[in-house]
Order: sequence, then structure tokens, then C-alpha cells
Amino acid sequence: MDMALAPSELAIVPFVSVENMMRLVNSIGVGPMMAGICDYLDQDFRRWDSFDKTPRVASHSDVGVIELMPTSDGQHYGFKYVNGHPKNTKEGLQTVTAFGLLADVYTGYPILLTEMTVLTALRTAATSALATRALAPKGAHTMAMIGSGAQSEFQALALREICGIDTVRLYDIDANAMKKTAANLQGLMQVIQCDTPEQAIEGAQVITTCTADKQNATILTDNMVGAGVHINAIGGDCPGKTELHRDILHRSDVFVEYPPQTRIEGEIQQVDPDFPVTELWQVLTGQAAGRTNDRQITLFDGVGFAIEDFSALRYVYDHIQGTDFFQSLDMLADPDDPRDLFGMVRRAGA
Amino acid sequence: MDMALAPSELAIVPFVSVENMMRLVNSIGVGPMMAGICDYLDQDFRRWDSFDKTPRVASHSDVGVIELMPTSDGQHYGFKYVNGHPKNTKEGLQTVTAFGLLADVYTGYPILLTEMTVLTALRTAATSALATRALAPKGAHTMAMIGSGAQSEFQALALREICGIDTVRLYDIDANAMKKTAANLQGLMQVIQCDTPEQAIEGAQVITTCTADKQNATILTDNMVGAGVHINAIGGDCPGKTELHRDILHRSDVFVEYPPQTRIEGEIQQVDPDFPVTELWQVLTGQAAGRTNDRQITLFDGVGFAIEDFSALRYVYDHIQGTDFFQSLDMLADPDDPRDLFGMVRRAGA
Repeated sequence: MDMALAPSELAIVPFVSVENMMRLVNSIGVGPMMAGICDYLDQDFRRWDSFDKTPRVASHSDVGVIELMPTSDGQHYGFKYVNGHPKNTKEGLQTVTAFGLLADVYTGYPILLTEMTVLTALRTAATSALATRALAPKGAHTMAMIGSGAQSEFQALALREICGIDTVRLYDIDANAMKKTAANLQGLMQVIQCDTPEQAIEGAQVITTCTADKQNATILTDNMVGAGVHINAIGGDCPGKTELHRDILHRSDVFVEYPPQTRIEGEIQQVDPDFPVTELWQVLTGQAAGRTNDRQITLFDGVGFAIEDFSALRYVYDHIQGTDFFQSLDMLADPDDPRDLFGMVRRAGA
Repeated sequence: MDMALAPSELAIVPFVSVENMMRLVNSIGVGPMMAGICDYLDQDFRRWDSFDKTPRVASHSDVGVIELMPTSDGQHYGFKYVNGHPKNTKEGLQTVTAFGLLADVYTGYPILLTEMTVLTALRTAATSALATRALAPKGAHTMAMIGSGAQSEFQALALREICGIDTVRLYDIDANAMKKTAANLQGLMQVIQCDTPEQAIEGAQVITTCTADKQNATILTDNMVGAGVHINAIGGDCPGKTELHRDILHRSDVFVEYPPQTRIEGEIQQVDPDFPVTELWQVLTGQAAGRTNDRQITLFDGVGFAIEDFSALRYVYDHIQGTDFFQSLDMLADPDDPRDLFGMVRRAGA
């Protein structure tokens, strides 16, 4: 490219491809990177009020949904593009793909474009760990992981890295999926494959459910859940998709990210709109009580919120500085004379 | 990259950089490309009802705004990211930068990412031409172009290419800006530089106003506008920013893109919320009258709407096929086993 036509530095947007995201993850380590993202989440949850909390903008079709999830803290603006197409897997495609963008609010210029399929897996698990660290009973060391899908290893490793969990008890209705998760976790923590969900939750202080493809399933029945546990219900994350029997909700103290969204998408869609919930950020800042006794069941009804993507975008932006884990995209037109866009285009063709 | 780790074809998103957009424009020609986009606009305006017309999602700050403008026709989904920061030019930055994305509604997969600063200039001018072709008096050959900013050459050339305009009469308060526009248009059409706006509109059948940086300016006063002309009022495009004296509106038949947006952003923000307007798409389909007599003043109050970006994205998507005017971005994670995202990440680091 002719230097006279070369875009200026500010017109260049760093782009983190899937390959580069995997390089970044492996250079930091999956566990340490989730711990790092958890710190960013913790910072951002503690300044919850400083965020512009726009509802997600969804475009529905018969076969799926495409959503934009924007938020801003006044300094940075971020959004995630994410689709959800359950029928895709039958066609050799991913159910969910995602990418995200971070921009500078002062200039309006994008400063980061990144894949977010891998990154969303990390931030989702880091968010579960954030809730678990705040709410689980003291000394928790064993978790049940119900569901061996794409999230399972991340969920288990985040709780190992951040919450002191050393043992994971796995269950999935698909034995091959469970074997996959067990093989991936081998050597990273103690892994026990179980034949039933009841067996998986035996002796677990933390229960994480993360199953997919099921409408209003009952992964946990009421009599399976004993006193004193902490539950992360991650898989119930859209209207018509829940994992827990509703009686469990009535015995639990329920913690959520953003009530207006969780009441539509989370486990609490099964109960009345005035069902009492506590916002997780208020527990972190000390404005609301978290776990108050050993017999209490705490339930984090996680659905995923835009601020979590924002935290993850901030983390990636900070951690690619000084690395080569990105490409430079010439995405923003930058004529020397802003009034002479036409001249710029014509000169490029000369 | 190891072939076993190479992303599949569907996980690759074509990206049109600013440089490649300029190559595409110059390979087709500015005029013919605007004519092509005008055809796509015409098709899409004629099937207006088939679009999901979400309002734009704006994030405001003290110094500017960042907006997402999504729309869908049920087959494709598109959105544009665009910022508006008037103070940027003083800091050597662009007031507006933009990029856009097109996705397949059936799979949710993005199929095109592109710069949209240059592309927006083309679609904005093509939209003016679409309105002018439908509304201008027959045999119109001379236009006045008030304002010599970044849009001016595109506006003039679109009307030359699409509406038979052969002469442009220029005016700008900044003589250097006018000289820039005149120089750029030299040899492409007859260009007359004028000393006053009154002189510019002498003998013009079409008047296009496209000025910037002014709040509620009066670029055209009522006594300047004679019978029978068509006006494209392009520069009044956000709350508090208008170009025409309101008396002109009362003497004109006003045509708009999408009334709920134009009443907030367009010239008609100056008049009552029930001020009668006609939607341009209805003129194109014959559902509403356009110009009905030679004395009538027709006014296109253009503010820019998401469907126009969608048409432009479709045009680019179709016209980069078989070219090398794009890069391939590895933007979507695509594990062989969708449940084994973790394994994919780990193997990439092995």
C-alpha cells in the first residue's frame, strides 16, 4: 500500500481471531485467564450503577434468534453479537456463534473487535465462580457438574481456580459426552463419572447445572437438593428453557444478575413476577446479604448479561497489548481532509 | 496453521476493509455503483412491509452518540455501527465512522463484515437519487448543491448517473470547500461555483441541501424556493439539527423514509407531530401519489434509515463474490465436536 494512502493508527482496529483467542488463552492458561476475567467481573459488578443497562435487541425468526447486547460505563462502549439456532447442530453448524466490539466513548472509535464464542465460555464460567465464591458454604471442595456440554470443563476449572474446588462429580445422559469432559479434565482435578444425577450430587457442596436442548426440563428435582448447598443454574437461559423443579426455587435464596432479564430468561420464569431475588452485585458490595447460615440453599440463576461481556472485552483489550495475538483491520475511513472522502476514494483508484 | 485446526469455510467471514471498499468502488465506478445500490434500494423500498423495523439503539454521552441500526427481511439480518462525534474533527478524527455486518437469518452466521463510512456516503446519495427520480419535475437537468462537505460529490454524481442531471450549481460558505468539490467534479458534469445560495438555486429544478455542524440553521429561506422544484434536505438528520425554514415545509409535499424516525431527526421536527407526510416506499409502489403537478414543491426529508444500509450491505455482498476485494476473517469458533470447545482450545496450544 502507498504510504500516502496508508490508514492512520487510529483508523486501525485490532481484531482477535478464534486462532489468536486460543493462543491468548493458552499463553495465559485457561484457569488463570478465567481468574483474571473474574477479577474484571468483580470490579464491574461492584460499580453496577455506572453502567447503561440497555435491554438486548433481539431479532427472532422461526429457527433462531440474533441478538445485539450493548452496554457502556461512560468510558467504554461494548456490544456482543450472538445468535442462537438450536437446529444448527444437526446441520454441522454451531448453535451459538458470537463476536464482540469495544469502543472508546469519547471518540466513538472502535478499539477492539474479537471472536466471542471461546471468550463467552470463559466469562460464563468466571461469572459462576464469582457467584460461587460469594455464596458457597465455607470449605466447599466438591462440585457436581450436571451436563457435559461445551461449558462443562470451563465451569469445573473456574471453580477449581477461583473457589478451591478440587473434585468434580460428572453426570450427563450421554455417556460419550461425559467421557469427553472427564478426559479433558483428567490431571487437572479429581474427576468422578457418575451413573445418575443423584449419585453426582452426593457429597457435593456446589451443584452446577448446565444442560442444553431441553425445554423446561427437570434436571434437579426438589428431593435431590439437600440443605446448605450452593447451586449454579446456568442452562436455563431463555424463555421456555429451565432446568430446576420450581419447588427448589421456593426453598432457596435466589441471586440474579439483572432481574428484568432473568425473570424472562432464567429459572425464575417459572414463578411469580414478584418472586423475591437478590442482585449479585449487591452481595459483592455488601448492600445485600449473601449466605447467612449453613443450612441455606443459595441459587445463582445465571442467564448471562451484557456487562459480563463488557468485562471480558476489557480483559482481552488489556491483555493483547504488547502481544501479537491480533490482526490490524483497516476498518475506519480516515481521509486527510474529512470533507474530501470523494477525493480519497478517487485517489485510491489512480 | 495446522490443517486439522484450520477453520471451516462457514466459520470464515469475508471482511471488506476501507482499502478494499475503495478498490471495489473504483473497479465498478462511483456512478455505476451508486446506480446499482439505487436498484437494490428500489427493490427493498418496494417490499417495505417485509422488514423488521427496529428503532436504532443509541448510547449517548456528553460528546457524542454510538448507535446500532439493525434490520431484517427474514432472510438476511444486517446492522450498522455508527458514531457521531462533532468535536472529533478538531482533534484530527472523523465525526462519523461506521461499519456493518450482514448475517444469514437461517443459520445466524455472519456472512459479511465491511467498512461503512465510504459505503454510507454511496447509499445516502443513492437514496437521494431514488427520491429525486420519483419526485423531481420531468426533464430536470440542473441541481443546486448547497454544502460542499464529504457528501457533496456523491450527491451530485448520483443525480447525474440516475436522474439525468447534467449541471450542478455549488454553494458553500467556505470557498475552499466549494473549490474542493468543484475540482473533484470537474470533467464529470458541468460545475458552476456560486457566490450566494440564491445564485446557486437560480434555474435549478432540484435543490439538495447537505450542510453540517450547524444547529437549526436556515440554509433555505421561504422566499428562495420557487414553485415546481424538488428539494432533498439531507443535512437535517438529528434532533436540533435542521436546514430549512419551517415555512417551506408548509408549502411543500413532504416525503420521508420512516415517519417515527424522521419526526425526531428530520426537518419535520420543526412542525407538529401530526404534520402530514408521505412514505417514499408508498410512492414507489404506487400506493401514494408523488408529484401531481408542475407547480408543486416536493421535499424529501432524508435522515438515513437502517433498510438503506441493509440494501448497501446486500449490494456489497453480491458484488465481492468472485473478486479479491475482501479478507477472510477467522471470526467464528467451529469445533469439530460442538460439545468440545475446551478440547479445541487445548489442542490449539499443544
